[in-house]
Amino acid sequence: MVGHLDIRTRGKGLHEITSSVQDLVTSSGIVDGLCTVMIQHTSASLTIQENADPSARHDLEAWLDRHVPEDDPRYTHTHEGPDDMPSHIKAALTATTLSIPVAAGRLALGTWQGIYVWEHRRRGSTRQCIVHVGG
Amino acid sequence: MVGHLDIRTRGKGLHEITSSVQDLVTSSGIVDGLCTVMIQHTSASLTIQENADPSARHDLEAWLDRHVPEDDPRYTHTHEGPDDMPSHIKAALTATTLSIPVAAGRLALGTWQGIYVWEHRRRGSTRQCIVHVGG
Amino acid sequence: MVGHLDIRTRGKGLHEITSSVQDLVTSSGIVDGLCTVMIQHTSASLTIQENADPSARHDLEAWLDRHVPEDDPRYTHTHEGPDDMPSHIKAALTATTLSIPVAAGRLALGTWQGIYVWEHRRRGSTRQCIVHVGG
Repeated sequence: MVGHLDIRTRGKGLHEITSSVQDLVTSSGIVDGLCTVMIQHTSASLTIQENADPSARHDLEAWLDRHVPEDDPRYTHTHEGPDDMPSHIKAALTATTLSIPVAAGRLALGTWQGIYVWEHRRRGSTRQCIVHVGG
Repeated sequence: MVGHLDIRTRGKGLHEITSSVQDLVTSSGIVDGLCTVMIQHTSASLTIQENADPSARHDLEAWLDRHVPEDDPRYTHTHEGPDDMPSHIKAALTATTLSIPVAAGRLALGTWQGIYVWEHRRRGSTRQCIVHVGG
Repeated sequence: MVGHLDIRTRGKGLHEITSSVQDLVTSSGIVDGLCTVMIQHTSASLTIQENADPSARHDLEAWLDRHVPEDDPRYTHTHEGPDDMPSHIKAALTATTLSIPVAAGRLALGTWQGIYVWEHRRRGSTRQCIVHVGG
């Protein structure tokens, strides 16, 4: 089964999509299999991260901002705004696709794991993810 | 087939799991297909790296330690110890899931490739991986 | 179906393979499914990146070169040349495997996404990718 998710992000940071992905797994009827999520953008990405303490996500975002700053004068790809080139680098360093085993009809995530869309543009956008669930 | 691997890590660094993953592929009976490994943690990760010279893994670990240090006063997520927040960042920069084609019953890895659990906590832990093998 | 791609890279940088991967998807006859690409090397990697403006790929490569330099005296894995250890680090920070859903017989990539082999060695090489396409 190939499904779609549209995620409205309202700015930079991690937006959890675990329950939406689980809904697609449930509707597929697949009990044991594999769920793959791909984000169809190069200025946002995916990650599996801690879903408990928001301070961990804050520090993660801050580390990436320090190492991939907006104001580096060496960037040449600047016509889409100062946050565009850093977004591509951040996407390359994180994940564009994730594959998660499905067991007993559930995403086999660890207790503290959530699936996140990681928005790298300041304004956010509607981000499209494609989800494949197979046996 | 969905299988499990429990990996006892005794400290930071790369712990090879190639033969354990191959054992699960063999027991699945699948000849041509896809093997996906996911680690159910956010302070350890997965990587496919050179399996020949240990100095490459040493330098890899040292690079990551220099760029994601423990003693950064800007971290706010500190209540689980000084090595916890760096572990989450390291996990986000490396892989939580890996999918490896299977050909003629074998993981189709290159000659010098091994699959590793990358432990980011100082003390290590028992790390759980979920392995899906499909046709 | 498990297929092979041999990619001749002639130096560092991003080499697009989208159409070659699509050819394998087409020849598989699979309409809705999943395509997984794995590179069988640890000094080259894979990425999904912007396929429109070459300046984005230039800046991406330059960022990675600045953060993973060749001339770091702390490297101990040096006998394969000054560009070898940085190549392993760069591979660990990017992707060795990518899984892309297939819908209506096409890779379900976004409009501006391309699949690239990312060569990290100065001289380049013939790089082997394994491609699995499943239902």
